[in-house]
Order: sequence, then structure tokens, then C-alpha cells
Amino acid sequence: MDAIRFTVEAQDGEARAGVLTTRRGVIETPVFMPVGTAGTVKGIRFEALESDDLNAQIILGNTYHLWLRPGIDVIKSAGGLHRFIGWDRALLTDSGGFQVWSLGALRKISEEGTEFRSHVDGSLRFLSPEVSMEVQAALGSDIVMVFDECAPGEASQEETERSMNLTARWAKRSKVAFDRRQSEGADTGHREVEGLSGSQALFGIVQGAGHLDLRRISLEQTVNIGFDGYAIGGLSVGEEKSVMFEVIEHIAPRMPKAAPRYLMGVGTPEDLVEAVARGIDLFDCVLPTRNGRTGQAFTSRGKLNIKNAQWTKDQRPLDESCRCSVCRRHSRAYLRHIYMAGEMLGGILLTHHNLAFFLDTMRGVRQSIRSGDFPTFRREFTGRLGANGE
Amino acid sequence: MDAIRFTVEAQDGEARAGVLTTRRGVIETPVFMPVGTAGTVKGIRFEALESDDLNAQIILGNTYHLWLRPGIDVIKSAGGLHRFIGWDRALLTDSGGFQVWSLGALRKISEEGTEFRSHVDGSLRFLSPEVSMEVQAALGSDIVMVFDECAPGEASQEETERSMNLTARWAKRSKVAFDRRQSEGADTGHREVEGLSGSQALFGIVQGAGHLDLRRISLEQTVNIGFDGYAIGGLSVGEEKSVMFEVIEHIAPRMPKAAPRYLMGVGTPEDLVEAVARGIDLFDCVLPTRNGRTGQAFTSRGKLNIKNAQWTKDQRPLDESCRCSVCRRHSRAYLRHIYMAGEMLGGILLTHHNLAFFLDTMRGVRQSIRSGDFPTFRREFTGRLGANGE
Repeated sequence: MDAIRFTVEAQDGEARAGVLTTRRGVIETPVFMPVGTAGTVKGIRFEALESDDLNAQIILGNTYHLWLRPGIDVIKSAGGLHRFIGWDRALLTDSGGFQVWSLGALRKISEEGTEFRSHVDGSLRFLSPEVSMEVQAALGSDIVMVFDECAPGEASQEETERSMNLTARWAKRSKVAFDRRQSEGADTGHREVEGLSGSQALFGIVQGAGHLDLRRISLEQTVNIGFDGYAIGGLSVGEEKSVMFEVIEHIAPRMPKAAPRYLMGVGTPEDLVEAVARGIDLFDCVLPTRNGRTGQAFTSRGKLNIKNAQWTKDQRPLDESCRCSVCRRHSRAYLRHIYMAGEMLGGILLTHHNLAFFLDTMRGVRQSIRSGDFPTFRREFTGRLGANGE
Repeated sequence: MDAIRFTVEAQDGEARAGVLTTRRGVIETPVFMPVGTAGTVKGIRFEALESDDLNAQIILGNTYHLWLRPGIDVIKSAGGLHRFIGWDRALLTDSGGFQVWSLGALRKISEEGTEFRSHVDGSLRFLSPEVSMEVQAALGSDIVMVFDECAPGEASQEETERSMNLTARWAKRSKVAFDRRQSEGADTGHREVEGLSGSQALFGIVQGAGHLDLRRISLEQTVNIGFDGYAIGGLSVGEEKSVMFEVIEHIAPRMPKAAPRYLMGVGTPEDLVEAVARGIDLFDCVLPTRNGRTGQAFTSRGKLNIKNAQWTKDQRPLDESCRCSVCRRHSRAYLRHIYMAGEMLGGILLTHHNLAFFLDTMRGVRQSIRSGDFPTFRREFTGRLGANGE
């Protein structure tokens, strides 16, 4: 039996609307996953994530951060990440590969894995496919990502090829280590569900930077190993946006049709809609939470900087077509005031609205694909985004 | 017609359980008011304040802070403080007197009022009874406090007497200015309610530091002017706790029985229960919110420092006898982790629990007074508080 079940129920061009069934519930796709780096989606309570406003069906946890703090011992003693944080819906964990890669000069990559210094206590740590699978089994997330290596956006053909081949070898080792961990019962999140194996699912990651030929080889390498789902990694890391969309457009339709396709770490609301149009099913991104904390709201008419003096007496909500609890209750004038006064509530409320906007956008995307109106939705959505002129 | 209506419905010793009807709803007393300094109760959403967990019926706003930022123009343009912040339950505003007094060397007190420099932009500002009444009318709070002067905890008889007499003169000027503002229709919060005048209520403040004779004179001066309610100010400002309780014990029972009695800026859960036992009806304090942000939880077994390593793997809630949403969902281990990781959610959740504990304590107090079990409640409550040994 499989760990997850995925069905495409409607298609409009390359855009797909489907259902991803995990051992912790049913997720309608395309879906956006809020990022819960260190066991909390920053600035928002789990009750809000579960509320009708947001109704997030799946969130992401960062293996790197949780492994370093509070550490696996602590999370194991709670019975896994779901129980530790108090979230019973689906969890996807990344492998830590991207985080250690992001450390730049602070890490040393070898065939075996990546050595780096912890940003928490400066201790020397080593992350490898085997360690990542061990940690993710201990976390008990419902979807596990292979341990990969990323190439910089501007990497040469040669450099990218070397990195891509390392990723392929690490993917194989990830799969072997993952299967061993599952058979050893190391997965703390095991849950018997009708028609599913109860185990974790494992997703492979396609690399290859902006080189389409290498991306296709990477896709082949990954599919040959065989995973429950497939991700496109190494985008939105400094390359031109046109390069990003070229890669997605080239690769997504070639990915296995029967498996979910996950675009890692992307992007703005516009990016999400454009990637859906090219065949993507899953997304995660820190933008709604991070930008919320720094005073930027995403709205149906584009971005809005709450610090802007023009909102000082503006009684309108952040987004006049948004029905989230923040827009129903609070004005731009109020949000600007509490943000400028350094009040926590500023970041809390902007985060809530931004997540509501991202998740509501995905609801609109799904609906329009099912009703065959996605091209219209896409055109109108993108057209409105310029309206604020920011 | 009066601006508020207050009825004592049960009495157990000096402890009173009653109902305070304001133009924005009915408040059961004794009541604790969360402090919303700058138009937000720090770290908590209004939806949480209104939820069954907390169900706060009245919150406090700081005239000083709101006057300096965002300023009265901004709040007036929203139609008053209730509408500006999105809170339709009762609001009490202080006069700014205590805040400018707290500035110490940065302010200059004269017969006319207090001159000081704004902590926001360094500008020279002047606060007086007349300005305070003007600002509080513009805020449109339901209960307004007179502009008073506070004497330090250790002030001499002479110094205190001078300060107390200034407070009495300011109280008279406050009343005159208040009445003028009401008749001019400056109150933005006016609301017609069956049986009430629809106007703001005005509370007087008894000063006199730790000098019981001066406290009695101040009480007489204040009652002679005549207010809708009476507060004890100038406590919890550095004096011994025994002095504070001596003043409360001496003054509260001598305050008008038919009016609400408000103890300003006090205190710990234990202080609240002890002050209720001495006849107090209303409280406000920053402790639950401020201490929540610095990692301290109030529980039925005493204070709990969430940073303590002993909670690293502790799966128990903060307080095993608390039914708030934080205690129902999250362990000490999790709360410690997010607090130590510097995550906003740490302060958010501790704040929620602390407010739930304070408000639930007051529910218990009210219930026990009504059922005649207050002495037992008080003994058991205070007895349990030592249990954590912190």
C-alpha cells in the first residue's frame, strides 16, 4: 500500500485540481503550505491556521532548525512533531539540505554529506541523507523530502551537473535509509488509515539550476529511483524570474502525472498562479509570514506597505475584497498605528491576513480549474495585482 | 440620568460581588481589566479577548500613549477609540497623570499641569486636567479618570500632603472640564442606552501615599466633588506590600458603598484576591501581559518561569487545572522551546494563558462571594499559590 494517494480530478490546460490523501487528512490541490520553521508558523496560533479564514490542511517544518533546537530527543519524548507542537493535520518536513546549503562559506560539502556549524550554539554538525532520514523519521512528518544539494542560480553547466549528480546519489541513499527507518518503526507519526500504509511518504527533488538539459536528466534520475511525489528544488535562489518559469514550464508537464508536483520555496501570489498554470500542485513559501512581520501586506490589488504615511487615517481594510477576520475588523489606519508603535499585534494581524490571502487565492485557483475557468481567473487575478501601483 | 449604574448584589465580609452597567455592556464585578496601552492589549487579538477563555468585558487604554501616538486627530477621524481599534465592549482610559509622573526628571509639574518631552519624538508637551479631559472625550472611552498627581511610595507627610492637595484641585478642574466637554458633545463614544445618560462616566482618584490620615482627607476631598466611581491611586509604586494592604484596608470600606471602587495598577493574582477581601471591585495591571512576554506564567500553583531547563521535556500544560486553549493544546516543553527560540508565539501563548488565569481567578472570586464561600476560596487559592515553590 502507498503512504499517500493522489488523484487529479480536473485539468484545465496544464493546471490540475486534485486530492492528496495523507494519513492525516485530505488535502485539496493546488495547495499552499505555510512554513512552520521551528515548530511554529511565525506569529500565528494553530487555532487561526485551523479556522475557516485560513483552514490550512498542511504546514511545513524545517528539519535543520528542529534538529538543532530543541533537538530530536525533546521531540521524540513528546511522541513526534505533531504532538510536540499540537498540530494533528498533515506535516511536510524538508531535508535540511537547502538550509545547510544556504549557510554558504560556513559549510563544507563532501560526498558523504555536509559539515557545518550550528547557528544556535556554534557546535560542529554533520548532515547526510542518512541523518536527515533519521531525523525526519523521529519528527514523524507525513511527507519527507530527500536530502539534496542545490546549485546557485548562476551556476555553470559543469558545476550544476556535478551538484545534480551528487543530488541523485544522495536521493538513492535517502531512499535506502528512509526504507530502513520505516521498517525499523522509527517513524513517530505512524498512523493506520483505511487504504494507506500508515508510513511516511518520501518525495524526490529535481535539481539542475537553469539548465533545461540537466533538469531533464535530474528528473529522469529521480523518477528512476521512484518516489511518492516529486519536487522542483533550486528555484527562487537568485535566478531571473523568466528562468524560473522556463524551468517550471519545461519540467512540470514531464513529471509523473499520477504523483503530486511540489515547487519548493516559491513564491508571490502571482508566482503561485503562474506555476499552477504550468502544472504545479504544492507550494511553500515564507513570504506571507516574513513580509507580514516586516509590514507588507499582500492584497488582491497588489502589495501594500503598512508603514506608508498615506494610510494614517485610512479607514479601509487592507483588502476590500478580503473577508478574513483582520479585514473584517481593522482599518489600515489602525494596522499602521500598531505597526509603527512596534506592537506585536501589527505583525500578528498582517501575518494572518497574508496567509488568508495566499490560502484564499489557492481556493480560487482550485475552484476555477474545476469549473474550467482557470484562464479567466488567472488573467483577472494577475490584472488586479497591479491596481495598487506599489 | 447617570452614565453608569452599579449594584452590589452580594457581600461576604468586605468582599462585594456586583454588576456595573456601562453604555457598552454589563460587567460583573470584581473585574480585572487587561491593559491595552497603545490601543492593543500587547500580544493578544481582540477575538481572543472576546473568546470564552478570557471573555474580558472591559479593557484599559492609556491616554498618554494614545495622545502621543497616533494622536487624537487620527483617532477622531476613525470616530473614537472603540472604532479605531475595533473593540465594541467597554473601555476605561487613565488620565495620563501616572505616565507623566513616571517620567521622573523628564517632567516639570506646576499648578497648571505637567510639562514633559514625548518619548516618541522628543517634542515638548503639556498635560493638564483640561487637556486630559479633552483627549479622553476624543477617545470616547466609557470611563474617564481624573488627572491626578502621584506621590512616591516613600514620600514624606509634607510632600504627600502638597501632592494630595494638588490632586484635589486638579480633580475639581477635571470635573469642570469634563462636564463642559460632555455638554459640547466632544465625547466620540456617546451611545444611548436604556436607563443611562449615554455620556462618559468620570472616576475620582484618592491619593495620599502610605499616610492613612492623608488618604482619608483625600477620600473626603474626592467624594465632596462627587464622581461616578472612586479609585485608589499611588499604590504599587515602590512601597512595601504591607503598606499597600494597610491603605486598601483602611480606605476601601470608607469609600461610597453605592459606587465602584477601583484599585489602579495592582497586581498579582494574590494581590487581587486580597484586595477584593478588603472591598475592591475593579483592577487593572500589566503583569499578565508583560510577564507573559518575558517568559513568566501565572498558575494556580504559583509562578512558572518557562525558560527553566526543568521543563525541557515536560509534557504537562502550564497549569494542570487551567482549561484555556493554551493549556488544552500545548506542553511546557513546547512553550519553553518556542520561547527559547525567540518565536513570537511564545509570548503570545503565555500572554493568553496569563490573562485567562487572571480573568478566571476573578470568575472564581465572584462566584464564591455570591455563594458565601469567599473565605474558603481565598484560603485555598492563596494556599495553592505556594505549591510550585518558585
